[in-house]
Amino acid sequence: MLLEALYHVPRDKWAYAYDKESVHLRMRTKRDDADAAYVMTGDKYAWDQTFEEIAMEKAASDELFDYWEACARPKYKRLSYLFRIESGDETAYMSSKGIMHEMQQPPGNNFEFPYIHEIDLFKVPEWAKEAVFYQIMPDRFANGDTANDPEGTEPWGGEPKYNNFFGGDIQGVIDHLDYLVDLGVNAIYFTPLFVSPSNHKYDIIDYKKVDPQFGDNEQLKALVDLCHEKGIRVMLDAVFNHCSKEFPPFQDVLENGEQSKYADWFHINSFPVEVVDGIPTYDTFGFYEAMPKFNTANPEVKSYLLDVAEYWIKEVKLDGWRLDVADEIDHHFWHDFRKVVKQANPEAYIVGEVWSDSLAWLLGDQFDSVMNYPFSGTVLEFFNGGMDSYTFCNKIGGLLMRYPKQSNEVIFNLLCSHDTPRLLNALGEDKRKMKLAVAFLFTFIGTPCIYYGDEIGLSGEGDPNCRKCMEWDPGKQDLELRDFYKMLISLRKENHALRGGHYRILGACKDDPCIIYERMDSETHFTIWMNNSPEPRSLSHAIETEDWTDALTGDEVRPEEGIMHISLEPYGFRILSRRLDQETPSMVHNTSRKESTEHSPVHR
Amino acid sequence: MLLEALYHVPRDKWAYAYDKESVHLRMRTKRDDADAAYVMTGDKYAWDQTFEEIAMEKAASDELFDYWEACARPKYKRLSYLFRIESGDETAYMSSKGIMHEMQQPPGNNFEFPYIHEIDLFKVPEWAKEAVFYQIMPDRFANGDTANDPEGTEPWGGEPKYNNFFGGDIQGVIDHLDYLVDLGVNAIYFTPLFVSPSNHKYDIIDYKKVDPQFGDNEQLKALVDLCHEKGIRVMLDAVFNHCSKEFPPFQDVLENGEQSKYADWFHINSFPVEVVDGIPTYDTFGFYEAMPKFNTANPEVKSYLLDVAEYWIKEVKLDGWRLDVADEIDHHFWHDFRKVVKQANPEAYIVGEVWSDSLAWLLGDQFDSVMNYPFSGTVLEFFNGGMDSYTFCNKIGGLLMRYPKQSNEVIFNLLCSHDTPRLLNALGEDKRKMKLAVAFLFTFIGTPCIYYGDEIGLSGEGDPNCRKCMEWDPGKQDLELRDFYKMLISLRKENHALRGGHYRILGACKDDPCIIYERMDSETHFTIWMNNSPEPRSLSHAIETEDWTDALTGDEVRPEEGIMHISLEPYGFRILSRRLDQETPSMVHNTSRKESTEHSPVHR
Repeated sequence: MLLEALYHVPRDKWAYAYDKESVHLRMRTKRDDADAAYVMTGDKYAWDQTFEEIAMEKAASDELFDYWEACARPKYKRLSYLFRIESGDETAYMSSKGIMHEMQQPPGNNFEFPYIHEIDLFKVPEWAKEAVFYQIMPDRFANGDTANDPEGTEPWGGEPKYNNFFGGDIQGVIDHLDYLVDLGVNAIYFTPLFVSPSNHKYDIIDYKKVDPQFGDNEQLKALVDLCHEKGIRVMLDAVFNHCSKEFPPFQDVLENGEQSKYADWFHINSFPVEVVDGIPTYDTFGFYEAMPKFNTANPEVKSYLLDVAEYWIKEVKLDGWRLDVADEIDHHFWHDFRKVVKQANPEAYIVGEVWSDSLAWLLGDQFDSVMNYPFSGTVLEFFNGGMDSYTFCNKIGGLLMRYPKQSNEVIFNLLCSHDTPRLLNALGEDKRKMKLAVAFLFTFIGTPCIYYGDEIGLSGEGDPNCRKCMEWDPGKQDLELRDFYKMLISLRKENHALRGGHYRILGACKDDPCIIYERMDSETHFTIWMNNSPEPRSLSHAIETEDWTDALTGDEVRPEEGIMHISLEPYGFRILSRRLDQETPSMVHNTSRKESTEHSPVHR
Repeated sequence: MLLEALYHVPRDKWAYAYDKESVHLRMRTKRDDADAAYVMTGDKYAWDQTFEEIAMEKAASDELFDYWEACARPKYKRLSYLFRIESGDETAYMSSKGIMHEMQQPPGNNFEFPYIHEIDLFKVPEWAKEAVFYQIMPDRFANGDTANDPEGTEPWGGEPKYNNFFGGDIQGVIDHLDYLVDLGVNAIYFTPLFVSPSNHKYDIIDYKKVDPQFGDNEQLKALVDLCHEKGIRVMLDAVFNHCSKEFPPFQDVLENGEQSKYADWFHINSFPVEVVDGIPTYDTFGFYEAMPKFNTANPEVKSYLLDVAEYWIKEVKLDGWRLDVADEIDHHFWHDFRKVVKQANPEAYIVGEVWSDSLAWLLGDQFDSVMNYPFSGTVLEFFNGGMDSYTFCNKIGGLLMRYPKQSNEVIFNLLCSHDTPRLLNALGEDKRKMKLAVAFLFTFIGTPCIYYGDEIGLSGEGDPNCRKCMEWDPGKQDLELRDFYKMLISLRKENHALRGGHYRILGACKDDPCIIYERMDSETHFTIWMNNSPEPRSLSHAIETEDWTDALTGDEVRPEEGIMHISLEPYGFRILSRRLDQETPSMVHNTSRKESTEHSPVHR
């Protein structure tokens, strides 16, 4: 056994309370090194009387490691534990004291999860587990009221530039709500709506006022009410890292320098406030002089911004906040932000924009979720042919092990956004690849989000071309693609297994582009078969029952002598399903299930 | 290179701001596997213009791993980074994307420390870095006022039992303050002083009142004032996990059951409140029915206890709180506790009682320090002959890598307490071993604490025998031992190098009980030589200069041809020192220093 590969710490994603009764434990071994793993548990004040050994399940694998999980339910809320790992004839014990080949006298040397406190539980909104999001950039979605068009508004459908406007507004969204209902999405994420000189509005001047080019506060309220009537939740964009240079307190600093009562609202490194050799003398977003960074440690600033956060929740019954440049704001701020927001709406969904490892914000006291760009990166690379299915599954496995289950359940899975190339472009403008990626998105764990227009074939490389106007002429929309989205959204919404079910890889191979995986809850069992190659392929896999149907067509699909053979077009896929009548595992894995088929080869 | 051994996460002890300008980074490799490691850094918005490569220093090693450290000082507060590790001809890069043999295009795939926020800095009290603590159990230290003796008080020096009293009190401490001044300690940790039916007072009835058997609040105030006059800080014991069964709100619950307005102050699992088969129907400390556990999530309870915390700081100008059973109280409570306490006294020292891995509380938002029982366990096992010096250094190295530097600087290093056997007994009643352990304690990183009476030879196995009355008859005190303590305390207090200096192992071997290590700051360089064996030994080590003196006697000690030979009695030790005139590294290690002598054999 490779002892250097063993890993566990009694905290964060490795040991956390999932609910009032249970503690999830994860442990790591070298890939394909351990045969079995167990967690030995008890109450530290009554070890012998409460001792229980729990078999761990291999929950995920990445290139170097296997990850094991178990769920412990300590009778008296206190959990002491150590691990036993078996590999051939070798047994290793891992406890707080280190790794040993003989078990130390418990419980003094054990890992401790000292007590399950409900107040410390990481709770995420239930609705976010059911949500399918649609991201809207208001200037580019629909122009419902030409009276509020800003000066110089260009004709709808023109070439997007960094600084031009197309007149999209709240009325436009209201006008097209039924389109969204028809598509099947049940949540909208709006990029910023508040007063700002730019078209993207990530540089805000007035945080409590809807930009007149979009409408007014009353109209936003009406929109949210209408959304709620139609079963659609609304998330807005909180740009709290920085403001516009035209934000009045910053203007005051520009005018009065050190004497300004707002001088400490920002990070002014030296006066006068100016730009020297391209670098502002104050902190900014990036090095953009027009976006001065807030000093969120200043209690006045904090109070101002938290008031904004609360204001919109109360004013328009907002369902969530997406947090711009969230990682560059202090943790103290986000702790209090969560308190204020959850106080105002306990079911509010908090999604941080953090592009890299985000665990520091996903421990229950700051965000519920983050924009899962590492997911997009991996999915796009795979469906672009940049890695084989073995590597893809390793990377996806690694991502699942980044965060606690609570966050995985509502992590904001996107394939593109206003900050990246359009999905179609990111996949070489190959609609077949795009459909595969979308099929993966809608059959995977997390909260999926569609970037407006992707569903009707909108194209464009990075900013500004990924910010084209929405195409509303049905003759110019890719209706076949839209129906494809509709079908998958509907399938996801109708099947809890595709949202909250267990995920397991059935087939993935080195040097092979095809994958088979399953999603399963107590009611439904899905197997998903994907041919991520330009050639027709037939995938085969041993399968225990005969009761499978094509989830999209309803056709019966029968295995032959216990082997399912699925023929797929180039870049084709198929989703099979069957109803279950017995209880099957949710996250707390069915440790008795056979592991023999995991990562078995995909037969051609 | 063993890739499975590489480890870094962009958070907690692996990546943290040490001050406003610097971020400390740690990275792990397999023991003796890597030749060199570098961290490649830059600002993510201006990578090329800000790129800097920093050589990492091997800061510690344990059985399986080497730990590397570097300090980065990002010009614009934002730090992107990845690691380059070299082993023979092999180069590996570790970034947020994983481990690769070729460098990925920065900065999108890098680890991120997004921004250094001063408000998120982990700040510990400066005085605690200078402190030598003395732990006093008030009933057992000195009886200064027989008028307040509780009923049934037994004659001083009798046999300690779980339930008997000896009349020690605050006046007794006041009477003996000069003894403590003479000993050289500059901080006292008192076990609980508030109204309680027991002799240990860990079951409190009135949190705002000194137990009459010790005196009254005014007298405590006078004691703290007097301590402050004499340069002694005072830390009290906060027993917030549980109270006494006689605590009035719990009595109210016993009387009124579910109808009690205090019913939610505790964790009542079912009514009636009773004990069934030895298990209370309410949560307790351990399973002790007399110690009901507080529901610290209840805002009333929280407010009550935080008020107590603040009350004593303001009332008697308290310098710190030791937190009983700290790990079983919720994190939300401790977050707010820190805010209240640091608001009342920014220099207050917060020490949690957590026996196992405590990182979850040592990230800057809860405790400053914990009682370092893993340190005691390792030191005692080593000086009892239970491990060789190689293993000892590995374990100590592992402990140093458990926490960020801030905590290491003030971690509460104790060798015994009221909850363990006396130091003398823990070391087989061998005073020579005891002196070695004490010499290690006072020449190591952290805040040392003496348990009252250890210094004059008090003995006793575990509770209740470790709680004997202090011996005040000089004829019965081990004055030689006390002078030994005085000498080491004084040496530590006079030399910053022994407190805040760099620690490095010079000699430690498998199957050998002897160690040589150094402590060094910019002013003084110490080498400490220990013969942890029952035979006389001569230790030798290559040494660069000739200007060494015995730090305790002042005698010159000369190396011979670049080798220092030190003859030691059985269980003997020697501390050598020399003055430095050049700048030497503090934590940010001097990467140019030769590593060739590290872990070299101890010659006999």
